[in-house]
Amino acid sequence: MPEIHAARRTRVQAKIAALGAEAALITSLVNVRYLTGLTSSNAALLLPVGEPGILATDSRYGPAAARDCPGIELVIERFAESALVSVAVARQLRTIAFEAQEMTVQRHAELISAHAGLTFIPLGPAVENLRMVKDEAEIGLLARACEITSAAFAEVLPAIRPGMTEREFAVLLERAMTDRGAEKPAFDSIVASGPNGAIPHHAPADRRFALGDLVTVDCGARFGGYHADMTRTVAIGEPAAWQREIYGLVAAAQAAGVQAARDGMGVAALDAVSRDMIAEAGYGEYFQHGLGHGVGLEIHEAPMIGYGREGRLSDQVPVTVEPGIYLPGKGGVRIEDTLVVRAGAGAAGSAELLTTTTRDLLVL
Amino acid sequence: MPEIHAARRTRVQAKIAALGAEAALITSLVNVRYLTGLTSSNAALLLPVGEPGILATDSRYGPAAARDCPGIELVIERFAESALVSVAVARQLRTIAFEAQEMTVQRHAELISAHAGLTFIPLGPAVENLRMVKDEAEIGLLARACEITSAAFAEVLPAIRPGMTEREFAVLLERAMTDRGAEKPAFDSIVASGPNGAIPHHAPADRRFALGDLVTVDCGARFGGYHADMTRTVAIGEPAAWQREIYGLVAAAQAAGVQAARDGMGVAALDAVSRDMIAEAGYGEYFQHGLGHGVGLEIHEAPMIGYGREGRLSDQVPVTVEPGIYLPGKGGVRIEDTLVVRAGAGAAGSAELLTTTTRDLLVL
Repeated sequence: MPEIHAARRTRVQAKIAALGAEAALITSLVNVRYLTGLTSSNAALLLPVGEPGILATDSRYGPAAARDCPGIELVIERFAESALVSVAVARQLRTIAFEAQEMTVQRHAELISAHAGLTFIPLGPAVENLRMVKDEAEIGLLARACEITSAAFAEVLPAIRPGMTEREFAVLLERAMTDRGAEKPAFDSIVASGPNGAIPHHAPADRRFALGDLVTVDCGARFGGYHADMTRTVAIGEPAAWQREIYGLVAAAQAAGVQAARDGMGVAALDAVSRDMIAEAGYGEYFQHGLGHGVGLEIHEAPMIGYGREGRLSDQVPVTVEPGIYLPGKGGVRIEDTLVVRAGAGAAGSAELLTTTTRDLLVL
Repeated sequence: MPEIHAARRTRVQAKIAALGAEAALITSLVNVRYLTGLTSSNAALLLPVGEPGILATDSRYGPAAARDCPGIELVIERFAESALVSVAVARQLRTIAFEAQEMTVQRHAELISAHAGLTFIPLGPAVENLRMVKDEAEIGLLARACEITSAAFAEVLPAIRPGMTEREFAVLLERAMTDRGAEKPAFDSIVASGPNGAIPHHAPADRRFALGDLVTVDCGARFGGYHADMTRTVAIGEPAAWQREIYGLVAAAQAAGVQAARDGMGVAALDAVSRDMIAEAGYGEYFQHGLGHGVGLEIHEAPMIGYGREGRLSDQVPVTVEPGIYLPGKGGVRIEDTLVVRAGAGAAGSAELLTTTTRDLLVL
């Protein structure tokens, strides 16, 4: 693993050099983890072009950094960021690329005022863009997170019955993921039943499932730092005609989106594949969020797939495809898979589905 | 509750007016929650002086905002922050205070370039400082979170035995908190056994407990959004002399810190009370983190209690007191309580302990 992190740092250093900077100050904690292997709530990385880099963290994380991050210089300081800027000054580095998308206005002002001789320029999403394309080891961790998610969902689904609360089901599901090896849930599970299904990000609460409900469950396991993301909607008792109609429409739009997700596809065009089907059926105003997003060390990361977004899918990019229809006061349907785009398309499309639970409407 | 949030907004508006700004743009999500009651991953609040305010969030959170935030104008937009700046422009507000401690350099640059006529000035930690002093409803939620934590710890402690892994114990403990009503763990539990006890922020892993271990458990429940924080160190089997020595020292330093935590006490002076005892016994270099921190809607919030920190405790401020000694390669001890400072000191000190598990060394 240290070799993987060193190789990633080398790729970032090429971007730093191309910007005309002498070093980058990496302050996004997830980017620090990606480039060094250290998971910390207080860390930063100074990456001069052509050197292995200097990692700063505080004493709570010193032993873990010494153990997990060989081949990189270590600085143990409470104020990791300013310690690294002092190192930059001492090494006569003058132009430092920084993560303007992460650093706050206040910390930036403090760094500038404390180190007047330095020039800070934005690095841009150099590390985020590298993170978008996963290596096979990363895809393996994500696939394991998705397997755990699908298996846990299958295990607890038979427990759904009228009278159970949304919250009770969420707890059951999260425990099943943990029992199957998840580090923790990838995010707070959504369990939205009946009219709550119209609230895309409903937090599971005390509402009891009832006959006639659609129940939307959005969940995922985290494994090795990688986040699975899957949504299924099931029916409790025989669904009404309107429920079957929106379910069928979302399922068709989702399948079309999965089918279209391939190397070279533009993210806005992919969004349109599913969105246009829903809009043509007259439900466009009830699908207001983007079609999906990248997943990896964060649950939401590049590329964002939505109307007006820029960028293209490429080989080894994992994303979600998750259209939905939300009818205020009535209920909703969302179906979501995590998949990884693979180059070399076959007739069945080029995406490899990592979440495998059936997308047929389950009537419980 | 809407009245509480409106009253909080009024208090912030006094700070805004004092800065000479016409409005504030609140972008810290926890501050938005504190001032409106909305929990969202994408929201912002525009607070003109003398008006109820305008809350922006995206369509996923629209129904929750409409339900939970009466008395405030609502804007449903994907880009909550820029939507509110457009509102400010339309209302001819010119000088906007913003949260420089939260807003990134990139978002700030985008707002400025899109709205050239506006002047942005830093609001400072106005909301964070208000949040430091909790009302009795907040203290009630925090007390409940602490009760759950203490009760769950008592329930699972008898399960500790040689051969059990750190991770297995962490899972047991977190489930006990959930079963007793926690929304979720307040943070990833720390279970650090044997030599891992020397790593203050050790993530529980596959190490099996063994006779002769000290085991440090740092955990907390979240309830109603409020975060409990408690640490206990227990012994598996009869402790060695060095283990008893550092335990006794940390326990005495912790008790002295709790005793000293009162209305008007400076945070650096409070840190020194515990730190000096540990240093005088020759262990100063093995206690490298701050003595404690505020707790509330965040697990770490103002005031930070440590060497070189500024500020004073006051009535109704909840904080942790958590000294530790960490001996590299050998093990460690940390003891931590959540307590709330109360004005009107008695002979026994003025802090009300919210976590109540015994601080005597438990030998299991």
